[in-house]
Amino acid sequence: MKKGFFITFEGNDGSGKSTQIKFLSDYLKKKGMEVTIVREPGGTPIGEKIRDLLLDKENKEMCAVTEMLLYAASRAQLVHSVIGPDIEAGKVVICDRFVDSSYAYQGMGRGLGIKTVSTVNSFAIGKYMPDLTFFMDIDADTAMSRRNSSGEEADRIESEKMEFHRNVYEGYNTLVSLYPDRIKRIDTRRCPEEVFVSIRKYVDELLDC
Amino acid sequence: MKKGFFITFEGNDGSGKSTQIKFLSDYLKKKGMEVTIVREPGGTPIGEKIRDLLLDKENKEMCAVTEMLLYAASRAQLVHSVIGPDIEAGKVVICDRFVDSSYAYQGMGRGLGIKTVSTVNSFAIGKYMPDLTFFMDIDADTAMSRRNSSGEEADRIESEKMEFHRNVYEGYNTLVSLYPDRIKRIDTRRCPEEVFVSIRKYVDELLDC
Repeated sequence: MKKGFFITFEGNDGSGKSTQIKFLSDYLKKKGMEVTIVREPGGTPIGEKIRDLLLDKENKEMCAVTEMLLYAASRAQLVHSVIGPDIEAGKVVICDRFVDSSYAYQGMGRGLGIKTVSTVNSFAIGKYMPDLTFFMDIDADTAMSRRNSSGEEADRIESEKMEFHRNVYEGYNTLVSLYPDRIKRIDTRRCPEEVFVSIRKYVDELLDC
Repeated sequence: MKKGFFITFEGNDGSGKSTQIKFLSDYLKKKGMEVTIVREPGGTPIGEKIRDLLLDKENKEMCAVTEMLLYAASRAQLVHSVIGPDIEAGKVVICDRFVDSSYAYQGMGRGLGIKTVSTVNSFAIGKYMPDLTFFMDIDADTAMSRRNSSGEEADRIESEKMEFHRNVYEGYNTLVSLYPDRIKRIDTRRCPEEVFVSIRKYVDELLDC
């Protein structure tokens, strides 16, 4: 049986990830494919409990290494329980954030470095690196003002200083340079339907391989 | 200022760790030393929340890698918030379980291997390896029957099969062989006061260095 595909979406909140994931899922289902949508951190009962720990603003004394290890713990459970089995079953798994978030947020935002984050996460991920990753490009300041105008309360990570968010954004730019074959930068300054045209093109190329 | 010391206690539940930690703390305080006692997993507000996740029997689908990463996450926070600062302040830190528990339980009990556990934990521990570790030697079957007769409900780890607990015990034996200078095997088949005579001897040697 042919194995499935693994597609991830990255980028700041407010970059339109959820809309594009919905578009992509509908598109793939119409082509007759089975699709699984998951999110990080979370996506499993244990992972959702870890998510609560990570995003709770009460936990403001959390050190960077603990944060990195908790994201990896949630990821390991998601790969073990959902991503791995569903890819092996031939489905297309779409994940809202994955290991690139850890590279950008803990590696670059917190300054732990990509090498450390990569070493720790290799145990969580095993062979399940994404086939294709979309970096929904929106600069940190625009993303922040979109989020602020949404009226939703900021979580522990979102509440970080602008400098942190700018470092995360620079981190994503670095990742796009490092892994150009896997990570595709998507210009989000267009209407959602136009954005999806770009995404669909890359997905069609992947599925035709 | 002279830096402090770091002493850890390992071994199955029911091996008398708590009693010996109390004896050692009283002994060191009488000598005029400042003592900090902590436990793993936990020991910080964030760590105690991770402890709840780890020991809750509801989380029975937790995979081995997630378990390893959660223990390391709790440890990183404890080192960051308590162990590191208190050792730097010249105190004696006594910890009920530390990284050797991860070597024995996740490395050997779960079969992840010492190398994997060591790599992940190096980020959590940094330079704070224990100066001295006591392995409170009690075989898995005796420990289990002591625990069963205590009437306390078993947590997720304690509820594992006897084969797991025997592998953990063998893991501790391997660790004593690998690190004989740091890890001292303590025969617990004696009255607590006699057990403490052995422990005190090793601690006096450490403090005289």
